[in-house]
Amino acid sequence: MTATQYGIGVDLGGTNLRIAAVSPTGEILEKIALDTEVKEGRERVIADMCGAIEELCGRMGSGRPAGIGIGVPGIINLGTGMIRQSPNLPGWSDFPVRADIENRLNTQVILENDANAAALGEKWVGAGKDVSGLCMLTLGTGIGGGIILDGHIWHGRDGMAGELGHMTIDPNGQLCGCGNLGCIEAYASATAIAHMAHAAINVGRSPALSRAAEEVGELTAEIVFIMAQQGDRVAREIFDLVGRSLGVAVANLINAFNLPLYVLGGGVARGWEAFRQPLLEEVQKRSVVYRATTPRIEPSALGAEAGLLGAAYLPFQHAAPGGAASASKA
Amino acid sequence: MTATQYGIGVDLGGTNLRIAAVSPTGEILEKIALDTEVKEGRERVIADMCGAIEELCGRMGSGRPAGIGIGVPGIINLGTGMIRQSPNLPGWSDFPVRADIENRLNTQVILENDANAAALGEKWVGAGKDVSGLCMLTLGTGIGGGIILDGHIWHGRDGMAGELGHMTIDPNGQLCGCGNLGCIEAYASATAIAHMAHAAINVGRSPALSRAAEEVGELTAEIVFIMAQQGDRVAREIFDLVGRSLGVAVANLINAFNLPLYVLGGGVARGWEAFRQPLLEEVQKRSVVYRATTPRIEPSALGAEAGLLGAAYLPFQHAAPGGAASASKA
Repeated sequence: MTATQYGIGVDLGGTNLRIAAVSPTGEILEKIALDTEVKEGRERVIADMCGAIEELCGRMGSGRPAGIGIGVPGIINLGTGMIRQSPNLPGWSDFPVRADIENRLNTQVILENDANAAALGEKWVGAGKDVSGLCMLTLGTGIGGGIILDGHIWHGRDGMAGELGHMTIDPNGQLCGCGNLGCIEAYASATAIAHMAHAAINVGRSPALSRAAEEVGELTAEIVFIMAQQGDRVAREIFDLVGRSLGVAVANLINAFNLPLYVLGGGVARGWEAFRQPLLEEVQKRSVVYRATTPRIEPSALGAEAGLLGAAYLPFQHAAPGGAASASKA
Repeated sequence: MTATQYGIGVDLGGTNLRIAAVSPTGEILEKIALDTEVKEGRERVIADMCGAIEELCGRMGSGRPAGIGIGVPGIINLGTGMIRQSPNLPGWSDFPVRADIENRLNTQVILENDANAAALGEKWVGAGKDVSGLCMLTLGTGIGGGIILDGHIWHGRDGMAGELGHMTIDPNGQLCGCGNLGCIEAYASATAIAHMAHAAINVGRSPALSRAAEEVGELTAEIVFIMAQQGDRVAREIFDLVGRSLGVAVANLINAFNLPLYVLGGGVARGWEAFRQPLLEEVQKRSVVYRATTPRIEPSALGAEAGLLGAAYLPFQHAAPGGAASASKA
């Protein structure tokens, strides 16, 4: 009897910590979901993660995992296996995360930016399983990006490629959290959508949104989406702007990369039907490469599992012949 | 005695047709410059080109060229060796350009987009000779783009990657020739600069520019640059807008690609000193990846020879082991 082959994927979010054992064909075999106890400090979060990984490995029986891939909301130093910068994980920079976990578990660990992991997951077993290249935007609290070229994450020289949330789409536009004016993140993140809805409520433009927010207790992108689906004019205007803004960003990416597929993921992508039309109109208008080649533009096929699956794929890809290096350095 | 090794590079512009024999180390050994007799038709231009190539090969003595690379102002179908689309070469589409020239000269021919060729030239023996990746914008009558990843032109799925002139940098901005609003080409091409100067003259804002244009007989980007260097306020404002607009575009490219080098080429890049400062200011403000990694941003090192040299490099690169395919398909 041979032991089941599997990789471990970890989605280390600022709020949720999810760990899965995944088969070489992308099936989630076992899964554990925890809260990320960020306030308890790094040591606690790593101990929780390692405990859960050991628990999962125990459930998987006698075999050992191919390795552990960890998607992290921040910028990774691929060389040192440290986190360069992560607003959601204070106190994690300048600590040898990879080495520490490898020591604890005696297994190869690969750190990756969470949006890069999500893009790789979509490439592996999601919307992009039939193409070798794609570009993904993850529309969550912020906006992340991941670029897959020739089957591999494009990291650029310093592992910072795909910082697509801070693409300027309107040079004199909305102020972004990063200090710049007009980043796509200031238009199409869940935060931006809630912010636009608040602004409309504050000037009395949308009593319906105001009532909906009161009923639920907070005003989220999800509520704005539901109201848009119900025909609320202000909610529709907001998603129209979301779509047009994404259209500018995606048009620019199409002109630059000429890939076969562009994927919209993250929580906001659940509102796809509310912003699909304006997005496609802008792309049609703004991208000569779109008009000539009609690449696919689609919502994530894996939803919230994209990052988890992509993380689990990392050790498999790393182990494959010629897997680690190609299309990843500049 | 061994015959001199060389490749033939052709820069087939809408106005000028330049052909060079280039050594494997990037020296121009012999060169012929002609007018492109576009109005006389395709047949005439190809005959002129082939005649000049034979003339050059004759001058080179007994050896044969490694191959012929031709940079063309248009979109190439890499598979068929035909030109998909070229406003400057009417009547060239749907004609087997590559096969025709190969038949006439009995030598391997590689067609390439002219901006891609320029980017490859800079990578080979220009600003990028010490890096493996770069992104180049060629600022001429229009704006072209070329992206080099891992030493090779990134073509994308259909050979249309790097259409950077039609990146939207201001969604409600200037009307571009392509019909879109706010393309970088509508702000930083020679055409756009002359257009802005005309507009200023027409409303009486710049008697000095008006006089300068009258003296020379036409109002070119070059004259606006000279006036900016002499301190003319309107000319300076124009180059300030050129720089800021390029800054938005370059910031977005840096965030997406994280490459070590971004090159500004084409005729307008001769005005580098007039737009360098606003460009760098915008990039600093708008690109988190720039602030973290400080890639180089520089004018072309090869000037008008970039495309010719890159074209000549194509047959050498093609002949190198593993040279043809990597980093070129999506």
